[in-house]
Amino acid sequence: MILSGGSGTRLWPLSTTNAPKQFLELLGEPLFESTLGRVGELGLGTTVTVVTGRDHLPAVERSLASKAIETATILVEPSGRNTAPAVVAAALISDPDDILVLLPADHVISDSPAFGEAVTKAVALAGDGALVTFGVEPSRSETGYGYIEKGQPVGSGFRVDRFKEKPNEDEAARLAADGQHLWNSGMFVFGAGQILSEARRQVPEILAGVEASLPAERAGTITLDETFSDVPATSIDHAVMENAENSVVVPLDAGWSDVGSWHSVWELSDRDGSGNSLNGDVVAVDVADSYVRSGSKTVAMAGVAGLVVVVTPDVVLIVPKEKSQMVRDLAAGWAASRRAD
Amino acid sequence: MILSGGSGTRLWPLSTTNAPKQFLELLGEPLFESTLGRVGELGLGTTVTVVTGRDHLPAVERSLASKAIETATILVEPSGRNTAPAVVAAALISDPDDILVLLPADHVISDSPAFGEAVTKAVALAGDGALVTFGVEPSRSETGYGYIEKGQPVGSGFRVDRFKEKPNEDEAARLAADGQHLWNSGMFVFGAGQILSEARRQVPEILAGVEASLPAERAGTITLDETFSDVPATSIDHAVMENAENSVVVPLDAGWSDVGSWHSVWELSDRDGSGNSLNGDVVAVDVADSYVRSGSKTVAMAGVAGLVVVVTPDVVLIVPKEKSQMVRDLAAGWAASRRAD
Repeated sequence: MILSGGSGTRLWPLSTTNAPKQFLELLGEPLFESTLGRVGELGLGTTVTVVTGRDHLPAVERSLASKAIETATILVEPSGRNTAPAVVAAALISDPDDILVLLPADHVISDSPAFGEAVTKAVALAGDGALVTFGVEPSRSETGYGYIEKGQPVGSGFRVDRFKEKPNEDEAARLAADGQHLWNSGMFVFGAGQILSEARRQVPEILAGVEASLPAERAGTITLDETFSDVPATSIDHAVMENAENSVVVPLDAGWSDVGSWHSVWELSDRDGSGNSLNGDVVAVDVADSYVRSGSKTVAMAGVAGLVVVVTPDVVLIVPKEKSQMVRDLAAGWAASRRAD
Repeated sequence: MILSGGSGTRLWPLSTTNAPKQFLELLGEPLFESTLGRVGELGLGTTVTVVTGRDHLPAVERSLASKAIETATILVEPSGRNTAPAVVAAALISDPDDILVLLPADHVISDSPAFGEAVTKAVALAGDGALVTFGVEPSRSETGYGYIEKGQPVGSGFRVDRFKEKPNEDEAARLAADGQHLWNSGMFVFGAGQILSEARRQVPEILAGVEASLPAERAGTITLDETFSDVPATSIDHAVMENAENSVVVPLDAGWSDVGSWHSVWELSDRDGSGNSLNGDVVAVDVADSYVRSGSKTVAMAGVAGLVVVVTPDVVLIVPKEKSQMVRDLAAGWAASRRAD
């Protein structure tokens, strides 16, 4: 099951609501297609379910065709309601005995075999009734992720003692260093029956709302009713996993990234001897450790290091890559200035 | 006499051969018009002579009209040959007793009364036969200017002991600090007869070449013959002033700038409380001491200081303002990449 609903602004101005990052050729092949490829490569089953928004249906169909996937089910949301309603909808159209593997469409995993091993462990645990999440060993203090506190070992994973929301900088430093916490990757494995029974127990209003919005057909392209937009928007981790009796985390060391910032894009890009990833027409003199992407204009830069420069038809973004998170403020400021016009 | 022949690349990508900086609205009114205004304000005589290139004749005529100057003489060069041939041409169409005041069209002088006083002193010295240059007390180590070594006092100036070409960084630091050197402002005052007799003595080939290219008419718009392009291209300081017996420098403290870099433009611009000069559509978060100029695109920047960003229809320039001199390398690199296309 591939979640392709995001419209994040963290890679603004390149990613926008109309062109979310899973469809961009940011690192070569669009991430949505890489995710489809991974599913095929790992033999994760015969049925691919994609959850996406109405506007992105054509892009999803193009990607499925490019990977020669003919049997996919597509759940079309009238509006994005975060992951819990999407997961519940996917579970409702599945057989209760199915094991669901949930993958966001816009993540990078560089080591597919290692990922495959982790998924195999997770599927086994899910077969025993666990709700499994993948936790990534922190490699730096990071405020952009939620954290998972490891408890007692369970099979090849650990019981989840606690899910923690995105921390502030001080707490992130502590969590990244104490050896007890993993990054929440936002990828999950569980039985369809299990997740629905937890949803029934914990968030019956979500379950009822999604059931009401599901049409009769259960295959092909399934368009959820407009009432889906009234279902509370919340994440599956927060709505269900957090308070489930049997949440388990499987450690993942597979070159995972959620490509959640321009800093990540720089890290994942091929770089020249000066540490630069220069894309498009760029004249650079004495430039190091920078990420540049331009369209029609030439970017001419000199005497700078560690800078992100992204030029789109409307916007020139300039931000140090270590401060990539400020892109959100700029995107918001830009949107506000558009409204004021 | 206003020299408007430059086509420098130091303010690239905004200034180009087609749009040299004296015609840009960089600091409000175009610098060429400010220079015309200064001439009028100081009562520097009834005759304005402008030397310019063919391509810029329309811009010169527009500027003269905007200042209601109807009696100007315009010398039109078929190609730029630096200042010596231009000055010789202007002297040849003048009365030998005329005192010529030479002003580049693209300089800024913020204190007109102080400048007026210096010009008055220079005119008096020139009346006694001196070739006068204006020297500016160095306020920083600067490799972008020539330097003038002061000798014995002469009237309200100093005999010129030596003209020095643009120095390297070490020498610039020494020259700026020793109290014996002034920046060569590139502005001069001398009698037409004096400069011609020095030219006849020192660079007769230039005098002969310019004479041959001058048409019969000596007023209005005078177009120099194509043979002017064969006259050696050299500066008046180097060709004549340097080896003249009677070169004198008058110190100038009048807020002079040749606006020779984006750093200078930033210095001369109005700035906000964070030290920024933001021109055009700019969204800035945590930005300080920066100069930004944009046309149609929004420049969105965060977490940077001391940066120059200039966006034109073709180019996005990004350079720290302290490294503005690197713009020349970028302009050259850009031109080379265009040729390669």
